[in-house]
Amino acid sequence: AQSPAGTEKSGGVTQEPFPETETASDSCRLFYPEDPIKIVRGQGQYLYDEQGAEYLDCVNNVAHVGHCHPLVVQAAHEQNQVLNTNSRYLHDNIVDYAQRLSETLPEKLCVFYFLNSGSEANDLALRLARQYTGHWDVVVLDHAYHGHLSSLIDISPYKFRDLDGQKEWVHVAPLPDTYRGLYREDHPNPAGAYASEVERVVNSVQEKGRKIAAFFAESLPSVGGQIIPPAGFFQEVAEHIHRAGGVFVADEIQVGFGRVGQHFWAFQLQGEDFVPDIVTMGKSIGNGHPVACVATTQAVARAFEATGVEYFNTFGGSPVSCAVGLAVLDVLEKEQLQAHAASVGSFLMELLRQQKAKHPIIGDVRGTGLFIGVDLIKDEATRTPATDEANYVVSRMKENYILLSTDGPGRNVLKFKPPMCFSVDNARHVVAKMDAILTNMEEKVRSCETLRLQP
Amino acid sequence: AQSPAGTEKSGGVTQEPFPETETASDSCRLFYPEDPIKIVRGQGQYLYDEQGAEYLDCVNNVAHVGHCHPLVVQAAHEQNQVLNTNSRYLHDNIVDYAQRLSETLPEKLCVFYFLNSGSEANDLALRLARQYTGHWDVVVLDHAYHGHLSSLIDISPYKFRDLDGQKEWVHVAPLPDTYRGLYREDHPNPAGAYASEVERVVNSVQEKGRKIAAFFAESLPSVGGQIIPPAGFFQEVAEHIHRAGGVFVADEIQVGFGRVGQHFWAFQLQGEDFVPDIVTMGKSIGNGHPVACVATTQAVARAFEATGVEYFNTFGGSPVSCAVGLAVLDVLEKEQLQAHAASVGSFLMELLRQQKAKHPIIGDVRGTGLFIGVDLIKDEATRTPATDEANYVVSRMKENYILLSTDGPGRNVLKFKPPMCFSVDNARHVVAKMDAILTNMEEKVRSCETLRLQP
Repeated sequence: AQSPAGTEKSGGVTQEPFPETETASDSCRLFYPEDPIKIVRGQGQYLYDEQGAEYLDCVNNVAHVGHCHPLVVQAAHEQNQVLNTNSRYLHDNIVDYAQRLSETLPEKLCVFYFLNSGSEANDLALRLARQYTGHWDVVVLDHAYHGHLSSLIDISPYKFRDLDGQKEWVHVAPLPDTYRGLYREDHPNPAGAYASEVERVVNSVQEKGRKIAAFFAESLPSVGGQIIPPAGFFQEVAEHIHRAGGVFVADEIQVGFGRVGQHFWAFQLQGEDFVPDIVTMGKSIGNGHPVACVATTQAVARAFEATGVEYFNTFGGSPVSCAVGLAVLDVLEKEQLQAHAASVGSFLMELLRQQKAKHPIIGDVRGTGLFIGVDLIKDEATRTPATDEANYVVSRMKENYILLSTDGPGRNVLKFKPPMCFSVDNARHVVAKMDAILTNMEEKVRSCETLRLQP
Repeated sequence: AQSPAGTEKSGGVTQEPFPETETASDSCRLFYPEDPIKIVRGQGQYLYDEQGAEYLDCVNNVAHVGHCHPLVVQAAHEQNQVLNTNSRYLHDNIVDYAQRLSETLPEKLCVFYFLNSGSEANDLALRLARQYTGHWDVVVLDHAYHGHLSSLIDISPYKFRDLDGQKEWVHVAPLPDTYRGLYREDHPNPAGAYASEVERVVNSVQEKGRKIAAFFAESLPSVGGQIIPPAGFFQEVAEHIHRAGGVFVADEIQVGFGRVGQHFWAFQLQGEDFVPDIVTMGKSIGNGHPVACVATTQAVARAFEATGVEYFNTFGGSPVSCAVGLAVLDVLEKEQLQAHAASVGSFLMELLRQQKAKHPIIGDVRGTGLFIGVDLIKDEATRTPATDEANYVVSRMKENYILLSTDGPGRNVLKFKPPMCFSVDNARHVVAKMDAILTNMEEKVRSCETLRLQP
């Protein structure tokens, strides 16, 4: 199947869209590459294909307040009709938006830069960290993904492991995965144990005479397998990083904006006393419009200004981007989606835990709010990722018009990060279908075993 | 004055927007920082402040077909209401848009990647070049600017000269400026002479045992001072770069899409026989919506795919971005803006040349279509940049409700790159005001000289 984002015309002959015979830029991958879906419409938590079939979207965390939310669409349209220019002129929207965002954050994070994508945000965070500290090196968590830009592939083990390998200025600490990692649910203090691993990395960096600019981590590692770091981990890490002269960057691109239910920001799950030095935002904050943001402290911003080199982003902070961002915040508030995520998420977790009790393939159910992972395993003793089975579940779910996907280094963790309007009925429906698929899988395995037992 | 893109709230006290007393993130700079304008509305080539004053916009090349063009705004709104998701699913818009773009380009450039900003496009171009060639180094033109990302600051002398300095993998060739550069209008073959300079750089890189991945250049260097490279320069450079195993990247972010009048792409000014290996697009192509694109050859794309690592851009190539991109192409065609740019540009150039004959401060008038530079000098013998005078003209023009700015290493080149609907009447008006300001300046100088002559 032809990949859309690397569409091509070759040899002067105009090809039909998505010809069967031509595989174009395979660098840009579709979901369900064997049998891709052509989606033509979206509304709330639903997507519709060209035949009008309705799919339940369990994975799109960009359409945060729901696909094509009318208030967000209207805000974009109203501003688009009036003015959409760069931030070289004064405009109220950018001030209002910075003000509204600041109300959700600890007081210390009071300077805002606006950009077009989470990747641009993480790249700026890297520049800010280096300028402020005068250091160069970065510590990241294993399996992390921080974006598609050159500088971010360098700090994303998920990417660089398959490419040029690890740069000498990048240092990888173990993922604080209490299900499959070094220290597990039976450890008395996994937060401390994982933080000591970071301390070890910091020490070894310093022994080499190198200097740490930043520790980057998603507040909840997503590509790493929907991981919930033990509370208190970030505080201890921040101590080690600060002692080395570095800053703590919390990447909230996939997980912020009320998704975790209990809090507006996922880093707040670590405890009231934790405040990152830099927070990066993207994806959800524009509900599909390219908007991103970096929030930081006055001290970091002042060091960046001191270079005398200006920062200019052509589209970042435009009146339209900010109008869209403001509308998303309005909808979150008006529809109380953070509280909704908390209650629907708890309900879904409870249903999934019942599934775990019923189906041995489910090794772990973890999550908070509408950020949930279902870790499929071969057997409980080894916790070996059930990769093929996870893929099979995803493709059977698709036949049932449910869009789900996997994450984690073993590609075996079913991930839930739906639009925030995902309902209790949606949760019941998804789990019922999953139950049927897993039950059917188990029956097939049993009949194969029966066959093997027969002479 | 407070800079909007680095807005801040400090000490828990909510500040009034743009307080007089607080200078916030100075990294993000306003036009006219002493007396910034609050723009609330835009239409065509005009911007309006909160008092309703109308400003003529001579510099915004992002609002390519005019601020808030109704057809572009409508296309965005129609698609926003229906679907705005990522490129993981099939969609006609992305195929149609790639097809339409391919019709404007040489046949060889037939693979398209969609992104959110020119910076993202240049970063991907760098990745593509490195992957395809297996080399690392980059040759750029002096004073170039290719974007705000870490990787692009590294290849932008305009930026890195003021920051960390030059990386060992970056090599700078002289700007092919035939007015103020090494080889000037009186040289028999400036294209060949400047290309030999690039050859010299290539040779010295290779002598060090280093290998060249790419040559990056804006097809018309903008920040460098509205430079028109002599025709044939790119062809010779491409030969030297190809011989070294590198690729030629033409950055069309500021200058493509019909602006140069005679051609759709600025690189086509070099001659029919010149085809870059990679073309990057941004700014103008979405008329303010964050859209960008990289076009390249099958060979380059295949090498990128061969890594097996996918390229995913959350917003890039979304149905909305592509709908906007298609609408911009429709308007360009329907309103024949390329031909319009050619005729209005010629008219404006002719008026400016008359000014040059009248005012000795104008050293050079250069340009093509609606990409024009007026180079202000202290005196003809030295061609010393008249920086202060250029700033004075810009601020006087602003008092006359004309938005103009400067570029070039000496910040002395008045640059014209207005929305493409800029009219013959606008040209007459701007030049009349400029004439009055220059005449007044000359009178002041004369009276000062008279004063000095008096005992």
